[in-house]
Amino acid sequence: MSGSRAPLGVAVLGTAFMGRAHSAAWRNVGAVFDDVPAVAMRVLCGADPARTERAARSLGWQEASTDWRAVLERDDIDVVDICTPGHLHAEMAIAALEAGKHVLIEKPLALDLEQAERMVAAAERASGASMVGFNYRRVPALALARELIAAGRIGRVRSIRAAYLQDWLADPAAPMTWRLRAETAGSGALGDLGSHVVDQIRALTGSAVVGVRGALRTFEPERRGSDGPERVTVDDAAWALLDLDGGATASLEVSRVAVGRKNALQLEVHGTDGALAFDLERLNELTVTQGRDGWPARLLVTEAEHPHLSGWWPPGHALGWDSTFVMQAAELLRAIERGTPPSPSFADGLAVQRVLDAIERSAAVDGARIGLPGHDETPTETSQR
Amino acid sequence: MSGSRAPLGVAVLGTAFMGRAHSAAWRNVGAVFDDVPAVAMRVLCGADPARTERAARSLGWQEASTDWRAVLERDDIDVVDICTPGHLHAEMAIAALEAGKHVLIEKPLALDLEQAERMVAAAERASGASMVGFNYRRVPALALARELIAAGRIGRVRSIRAAYLQDWLADPAAPMTWRLRAETAGSGALGDLGSHVVDQIRALTGSAVVGVRGALRTFEPERRGSDGPERVTVDDAAWALLDLDGGATASLEVSRVAVGRKNALQLEVHGTDGALAFDLERLNELTVTQGRDGWPARLLVTEAEHPHLSGWWPPGHALGWDSTFVMQAAELLRAIERGTPPSPSFADGLAVQRVLDAIERSAAVDGARIGLPGHDETPTETSQR
Amino acid sequence: MSGSRAPLGVAVLGTAFMGRAHSAAWRNVGAVFDDVPAVAMRVLCGADPARTERAARSLGWQEASTDWRAVLERDDIDVVDICTPGHLHAEMAIAALEAGKHVLIEKPLALDLEQAERMVAAAERASGASMVGFNYRRVPALALARELIAAGRIGRVRSIRAAYLQDWLADPAAPMTWRLRAETAGSGALGDLGSHVVDQIRALTGSAVVGVRGALRTFEPERRGSDGPERVTVDDAAWALLDLDGGATASLEVSRVAVGRKNALQLEVHGTDGALAFDLERLNELTVTQGRDGWPARLLVTEAEHPHLSGWWPPGHALGWDSTFVMQAAELLRAIERGTPPSPSFADGLAVQRVLDAIERSAAVDGARIGLPGHDETPTETSQR
Amino acid sequence: MSGSRAPLGVAVLGTAFMGRAHSAAWRNVGAVFDDVPAVAMRVLCGADPARTERAARSLGWQEASTDWRAVLERDDIDVVDICTPGHLHAEMAIAALEAGKHVLIEKPLALDLEQAERMVAAAERASGASMVGFNYRRVPALALARELIAAGRIGRVRSIRAAYLQDWLADPAAPMTWRLRAETAGSGALGDLGSHVVDQIRALTGSAVVGVRGALRTFEPERRGSDGPERVTVDDAAWALLDLDGGATASLEVSRVAVGRKNALQLEVHGTDGALAFDLERLNELTVTQGRDGWPARLLVTEAEHPHLSGWWPPGHALGWDSTFVMQAAELLRAIERGTPPSPSFADGLAVQRVLDAIERSAAVDGARIGLPGHDETPTETSQR
Repeated sequence: MSGSRAPLGVAVLGTAFMGRAHSAAWRNVGAVFDDVPAVAMRVLCGADPARTERAARSLGWQEASTDWRAVLERDDIDVVDICTPGHLHAEMAIAALEAGKHVLIEKPLALDLEQAERMVAAAERASGASMVGFNYRRVPALALARELIAAGRIGRVRSIRAAYLQDWLADPAAPMTWRLRAETAGSGALGDLGSHVVDQIRALTGSAVVGVRGALRTFEPERRGSDGPERVTVDDAAWALLDLDGGATASLEVSRVAVGRKNALQLEVHGTDGALAFDLERLNELTVTQGRDGWPARLLVTEAEHPHLSGWWPPGHALGWDSTFVMQAAELLRAIERGTPPSPSFADGLAVQRVLDAIERSAAVDGARIGLPGHDETPTETSQR
Repeated sequence: MSGSRAPLGVAVLGTAFMGRAHSAAWRNVGAVFDDVPAVAMRVLCGADPARTERAARSLGWQEASTDWRAVLERDDIDVVDICTPGHLHAEMAIAALEAGKHVLIEKPLALDLEQAERMVAAAERASGASMVGFNYRRVPALALARELIAAGRIGRVRSIRAAYLQDWLADPAAPMTWRLRAETAGSGALGDLGSHVVDQIRALTGSAVVGVRGALRTFEPERRGSDGPERVTVDDAAWALLDLDGGATASLEVSRVAVGRKNALQLEVHGTDGALAFDLERLNELTVTQGRDGWPARLLVTEAEHPHLSGWWPPGHALGWDSTFVMQAAELLRAIERGTPPSPSFADGLAVQRVLDAIERSAAVDGARIGLPGHDETPTETSQR
Repeated sequence: MSGSRAPLGVAVLGTAFMGRAHSAAWRNVGAVFDDVPAVAMRVLCGADPARTERAARSLGWQEASTDWRAVLERDDIDVVDICTPGHLHAEMAIAALEAGKHVLIEKPLALDLEQAERMVAAAERASGASMVGFNYRRVPALALARELIAAGRIGRVRSIRAAYLQDWLADPAAPMTWRLRAETAGSGALGDLGSHVVDQIRALTGSAVVGVRGALRTFEPERRGSDGPERVTVDDAAWALLDLDGGATASLEVSRVAVGRKNALQLEVHGTDGALAFDLERLNELTVTQGRDGWPARLLVTEAEHPHLSGWWPPGHALGWDSTFVMQAAELLRAIERGTPPSPSFADGLAVQRVLDAIERSAAVDGARIGLPGHDETPTETSQR
Repeated sequence: MSGSRAPLGVAVLGTAFMGRAHSAAWRNVGAVFDDVPAVAMRVLCGADPARTERAARSLGWQEASTDWRAVLERDDIDVVDICTPGHLHAEMAIAALEAGKHVLIEKPLALDLEQAERMVAAAERASGASMVGFNYRRVPALALARELIAAGRIGRVRSIRAAYLQDWLADPAAPMTWRLRAETAGSGALGDLGSHVVDQIRALTGSAVVGVRGALRTFEPERRGSDGPERVTVDDAAWALLDLDGGATASLEVSRVAVGRKNALQLEVHGTDGALAFDLERLNELTVTQGRDGWPARLLVTEAEHPHLSGWWPPGHALGWDSTFVMQAAELLRAIERGTPPSPSFADGLAVQRVLDAIERSAAVDGARIGLPGHDETPTETSQR
């Protein structure tokens, strides 16, 4: 691929919210971290020519394109970063891998298990690195949580209490959108929010999910469409109980109708000798209880000794949500340079989807437990520093 | 019973933790509230003569007794307040009701459904009032929560996220006790902590539970007994999902091994137009979100306009856990004077036990849903002021 | 005085808010603590016969009286507890001490320094114990803070940041009352709230105040009286900076117009090796930072190993504001039994008033520092357990 | 200056912490905001050639230079952004203004009042825009606070309780540095932290400071230098009370030895009809109490309707500390395009320094009040959107 000193050429596919967040990552990664290979922001790909042109200019790209297949053929593109809607993921990722590119893809990996399995197979065959964008793995407070658990600082994990609560659908009068149709969105709160929760449960514990019980609710079965009332075919909220192969039990609750919660990914981990708590609404903080007689201490995870933080600012300076994409890009670049697989892998993405699929199947049989024998693989290790 | 102006004679059965807490309630209720009938603290009953004698003196009782049946025969006893271990509840409560007494009984109502059903039947036949001691109904912040929900201030309730987390069993080396044997304790965290949670879910919403999914865990299957390792036969933690007849879904998690949590009864209620949150570790506070665009406001529920607070102190003066027993006694006394049934009733206690029983049965079938058609009755109304 | 086994006879002077709070303390102290001498609640004294009679009955007193001088002559009264308005303090306390009684008196000790000095002199001459009612010394979290500081757990104290914020006068349209006239109230926020703050600063550090800088503000110089606008002659808010003889600096801010704060006595202590923080609105909590690299941990001060808590409830059960009076009564009773002086002493009350007086004098000279050489005595030790 | 469509050429002077933070702002401002003129990152200036070269490359600059005077002469440089140590500020800023450039300068404006006055005079004479870098004015939560106050949402402001607490000097064994010598650092905590606090007090209220009382402390008078113990000649902590021309009183406390506080700029504003509270350690939150009977509500200031947030991410996505520099750059660019003076101006910087100077003078006369008649000018308006 690229010569050892030339910068790695990057293309981002997608110009919407995620395309912008990933563009910011590529624009800043070299300024923050001095241990990553240089990158060149070559091409931004989008569907609409004028919009893509404008976005490319403001976001710092050298070129705009509306032909992603042509981009894959370019020799000066080393990394393809896929930020398009989920139904395009499988086709684009497999083509990029087959073209010998390194691939970063936004979560969820794919719309269904069949697609996801084909993508994992393609990744296994490919020469390039492949990575799925569970960006919350790079929240320094969550990375610190993972370190503390791995180091045994809270003992053996017994239980996890997890939720991801938002409120943007709380209004019963909120109109119908493509996000509320199963055929376009695949899933509702479970897929959108639950995927992050399941990934965190796996990453924090290093354990696979071996059994699930689940339930789904659609609180507003009909919403106002352009032609009158329309049926909502995805869930507004979901609940699950997960058995982990390390012996822990995790509860999960996700909702898009939890009034007053904007972005509350809440994780509480209880071990035999301590506990941890986190809320994404306060993403620079981790609450740590050490020892069975310990008390919850509030850490500002903004110090140089904390994971991911060496390249940023002096102590006490809070990072924003968008910083996680910078650290994600850095992890991919380091993996490419080292020639080791980045984490989380496509296989991690598939494992998460298998769990979500099992939750849906359990919900369909009134919540009875569904086993995942040998299917949910051990999470890949995440590089932290 | 007692003449209209003579004080009501009270007897408490039980001298341990709950006997002390209830004694404090009878000692203080007349000083706090000026709208309740006068009481005379006649007899404290216990098993051990010397211990009962000492306790009676220090706790303010006129007499001590070790013969609870004799106490039931006395004409100067109007109210019998039962604070003994659960296996004595049914016998004592039924006898007291048959003797024409008003009966207050600590939760849980009974050890099993059969006993509880007999007690409810006795209560229905009896001339005296009967009440079960879910004292958290009298936490002013929870009483305010109930008022706000009933007044429609958060719209229609969609979901409740509830937990009761403690940590006193977190140590794997903690020894075996009678509380960890099914035959003496009946149940573990589910019965002890879950009963409070289920009662609150019913009381806050005014809805009956019509279906449950449940799971139980015993994290430490063996603990050190006096003769070597002994099998733990109750749960350390439990999870459930409850369907309410009003259409809401409630999740429940209870644990005795949640390191760093001492007494964390946490309730979060999400409605179509607002939300409420409470944590017993901060019992004078209620977090209220009003309106779909509202933000969580922290109320100190210590103001004169808040429920139960007229009789206490000026604004801003926090109450303690023990105050709930004073307000519980006041509610019973007002009901006796009015001749109306106090709340929560024995039937409420039975309804809670039916839910807990269904959770255990669901757990035994891998979490599949168990319906409670027509069995979990509508919660009784709680007097607030 | 009383024979060694007879209960100590108690009289309370005053039937209003403080008379009720102190009555509750005497009613409950023997039930909570088993290491204190028995008491008999003999007489409640008040000005209005009917009101005093009613209050005596509901609060648990054997008798009511309107003649406090007659009460002082009774042989069956050992303890006189003075809860009357401040302008009666000096006369009543000196008479009670001269009659050989033990005296507990609500803060502030007196209306002015001259009265306070006479009271201290009377206390020094007297055979009975004397104690001033700074009840917040008995908040378990503050007692724990004092222990941790005395044990060197946060190193040498460098600074204290203290405030006491309330909002009951925030409304500019709130009417005139006797509390806003210097001749009846003596002082405003400074005397009412600042006295608690200064007492805590002295008690927590064990240091005397040797210099002050102060400022006062009356935000609403006129308020509506019964005969039209009337001049407010006390402060609504005050600020001070205190030099302590141990080398620390303490800042103080008190206000009655701080909207949203009901009873916010906030103390933050920074040492060379740790820090502590407390807020009376969450009186069961103490935030403890241990070590220079430590993080703030939130302790629930509700455990048996915490000060004052052995006699109360099992772990995790919050106490209320009124419990502090029970522990204050217990401290006085233990001191009487041991024959040692209780703490805080009348001299502590005088020392606090000297600091407040110096703050007023500093405010009158535009905030320039006023020294207190040799006048503010070392705080007395507080018994904790 | 630059043609209407050519990008504005930017030079940053300084390659250390602030140089990096400002470089990130210029790198990202065009991607975040679509309403600002385009910029070209022309030159990064530093003292060390190799270091500057490396920094320029990683931070996204076209060129590196070690000759700032030569940079001022270039026609393709429109904006000069000064991030050098304070003793270079006056010379560089005046030269840049005289060269017709727009100037952004890091706070503090200058080392002393004489320099600051000359800079303000130069700014008044200059054709270019001038702005001082009080970046916290762009924290969305603080910008929202300013809007709410200006709109009268908390009534008339009565008092502000402000602090800025850090702990990096808490260790008595921490070694001597240039920051602790008056000749190199100018001032200690007062200048470094107090300048932000005073700027916020002025900006939030729109009021000038007309009187101050102050006190300074150096807790560790000597620290270990390279040649043995050395005298510390700046303050470790400072306190002040400020009179504002709108009638409010503000208290200020700053410290570098407050163990457990990393970056705690805390502001609490009390008005006649509400209150606001902020802590930089939770920079995405504002606590708002509206109405005299209101309760403190916690707002996540991450919504599109909040100031500065239109260009960022969807609701609920937290920003980091570094985002404030992006918004600061945007404000300067918009002002240049509109031809209106940006805010905060050099005059604001001078006004802040006059207040700090008066605090030092008050401290030298034992805290007596120093008036600032006619010297502290009315704060300039801050553009918010």
